[in-house]
Amino acid sequence: MAPRKIEIFDTTLRDGEQVPGCKLNTPEKIEIARQLEKLGVDIIEAGFPISSPGDFNSVVEIAKAVKDPVVCGLSRAVKRDIEVAADALKHAKRPRIHTGIGTSETHIRYKFRTTPEKIIEWAVDAVKYAKSFVEDVEFYAEDAGRTDNEYLARVCEALVKVGVTVLNIPDTTGYCLPEEYGAKIRYLKENVKGIDKVTLSTHCHNDLGLATANSIAGAANGAGQIECTLNGIGERAGNTSLEEVVMVIKQHPGLNLYTDIQTRLLYPSSRLVSDRMGMIVQPNKAIVGSNAFAHSSGIHQDGVIKFRETYEIIDPEEVGVDQSSIVLTARSGRAAIAYRSQKLGYHLTKDELDNVYQLFLDYADRKKEVMDEDLHEIMKISNITARVEV
Amino acid sequence: MAPRKIEIFDTTLRDGEQVPGCKLNTPEKIEIARQLEKLGVDIIEAGFPISSPGDFNSVVEIAKAVKDPVVCGLSRAVKRDIEVAADALKHAKRPRIHTGIGTSETHIRYKFRTTPEKIIEWAVDAVKYAKSFVEDVEFYAEDAGRTDNEYLARVCEALVKVGVTVLNIPDTTGYCLPEEYGAKIRYLKENVKGIDKVTLSTHCHNDLGLATANSIAGAANGAGQIECTLNGIGERAGNTSLEEVVMVIKQHPGLNLYTDIQTRLLYPSSRLVSDRMGMIVQPNKAIVGSNAFAHSSGIHQDGVIKFRETYEIIDPEEVGVDQSSIVLTARSGRAAIAYRSQKLGYHLTKDELDNVYQLFLDYADRKKEVMDEDLHEIMKISNITARVEV
Repeated sequence: MAPRKIEIFDTTLRDGEQVPGCKLNTPEKIEIARQLEKLGVDIIEAGFPISSPGDFNSVVEIAKAVKDPVVCGLSRAVKRDIEVAADALKHAKRPRIHTGIGTSETHIRYKFRTTPEKIIEWAVDAVKYAKSFVEDVEFYAEDAGRTDNEYLARVCEALVKVGVTVLNIPDTTGYCLPEEYGAKIRYLKENVKGIDKVTLSTHCHNDLGLATANSIAGAANGAGQIECTLNGIGERAGNTSLEEVVMVIKQHPGLNLYTDIQTRLLYPSSRLVSDRMGMIVQPNKAIVGSNAFAHSSGIHQDGVIKFRETYEIIDPEEVGVDQSSIVLTARSGRAAIAYRSQKLGYHLTKDELDNVYQLFLDYADRKKEVMDEDLHEIMKISNITARVEV
Repeated sequence: MAPRKIEIFDTTLRDGEQVPGCKLNTPEKIEIARQLEKLGVDIIEAGFPISSPGDFNSVVEIAKAVKDPVVCGLSRAVKRDIEVAADALKHAKRPRIHTGIGTSETHIRYKFRTTPEKIIEWAVDAVKYAKSFVEDVEFYAEDAGRTDNEYLARVCEALVKVGVTVLNIPDTTGYCLPEEYGAKIRYLKENVKGIDKVTLSTHCHNDLGLATANSIAGAANGAGQIECTLNGIGERAGNTSLEEVVMVIKQHPGLNLYTDIQTRLLYPSSRLVSDRMGMIVQPNKAIVGSNAFAHSSGIHQDGVIKFRETYEIIDPEEVGVDQSSIVLTARSGRAAIAYRSQKLGYHLTKDELDNVYQLFLDYADRKKEVMDEDLHEIMKISNITARVEV
């Protein structure tokens, strides 16, 4: 069977921007939207138009600025929200309204203080109303992760009937385990009449560190769209990381899925978002962290020098990183020292290497990282001169 | 059935410290080891004694400094490594030697340039030799994630015969999917003779963002130990985050597992490691990031104010964080403004709130975060005075 495409729905500019202290202005949002277009995302969620005049304006301008991706605006299941979203999207080549309401017991009972049947009515009305403005309407069943599957299937079926195009099943609180989330998607695939006419979407949060695994479990079980953000930014512990799900799909042909993401733009796109939002990416962040491809232990350095695939499952160039780095620290072994020395022009005999290695360890125990200038100094002490090769 | 205990094997001071530019000195390592003891970890991997004199010394001093946890030292499957590890551990109340060798085709063929049978011989010899120094010997089958299950089972069975106490099945390159990794552990549980006499351990890396999910899949399928680090630090994209696996297990009683971790010490322990290592924790890091419990969108703030569990699955106090924060930004709605205003002594009527909200949106579109002093200014402009309640 041919691989199935997973659409990448980027919400860096909506859910991602819902981060304390990280407000972007409109020109910055346009810059990021253009980068997302180059990156090859299928849908850009550009904002929540009714939430503030600034957000409204950003959605308008992003809709004008990009041409390939669908541009999506968020709304609650409220007429006024939907009208404002439709208005903000009027210049979009491919507009989508994303509306929805909470479907879990907690949401129905404590937030809306209503009944499950009433929620279905509101949902149906909202989708119908949104469909009067645009063809492409996505519905989010907020807190679907904690919503009873049987009830969730009824909500979905009612919406399929009124022409919803995408059904978003968010694990809003980041609570689900991958098996459980995958089973939820499979349940809907198997139990909602007409489900094959619409796209099921994952939208996972990372409160327990499971967002990537949950999104992949969803896709493997039938979802056709993954909602995510660059660097996994977003409210609380953030959303699913775009770069992680894309690379899991790419590195695991057994999943029989693919995306249209230009992976070589992942790293530059990550840097742009981090810079513009002032949101630091930790060094040990998967795929895009500054250490993601750095090897510092001797065992690993030795392995990578002999054969890259020993410790690297991704060629750094594939995600736009220049090269994997062999960093010299107290953890480095002889192989790494010899490797780096050779790059600097020193071709060491075994005895020379033993000697240099002892000096190196002294340096390394005093310094965090041994730099090229330290190596030159060590060579000088050891009376070893560089040989320049032409 | 009573819940099964999962032992927490912390390798912050060994695999975690294998990070470029993050070398700790011995007093700092002792300080962290003491914190890990308070936190309730079962095993502290204190270092790799043969790798450098500094590391050797740290293992010696940590072994003296803590009394409850097992103290473990790493070695390759080489006599000299094992002797040095045994020597470093001689003051430990409960010493463990952790030895091992690569078992995947890549490792056997490109790193060791030998045969699978020879690897089993080396492994058996190493475990036997380590057992001549200490009772508790753990073996790591490096790159087990990419090792054929049938061969891996043979390696394990040979080691069970010579008295190995823990079999560590590392996903060294962070490549496995959770289902696949869980199936690997289950395969060993079902196919290795005598496996119930030993503990199976997970050791996952986060190169694709799946380390937490893989570790949990391993534990759910029969592993009795999880190897992890605080803040998920470690080589490349790091190791499994201790705080994430511990909270997944705690929040999911359905797994029927437990750990002995004092979760209220998670946040202070995370801070200590971040400070001493100079390794930044990104704001959107699960459990311990500065935003992990911050709500800034209006919809979420409204929900949390009405009923905490609407958007929070963990009470921040449970992990040692003071309280969840409601941050006022352009995303905030009327409920959050009313809530914060009330905390400042302003009890607004509906009309007053509408008026204040419009002014607030102006402020919020200009500023990233609206602070209490801004709210006071808005109240002043609106001619609203605070009412002090006694």
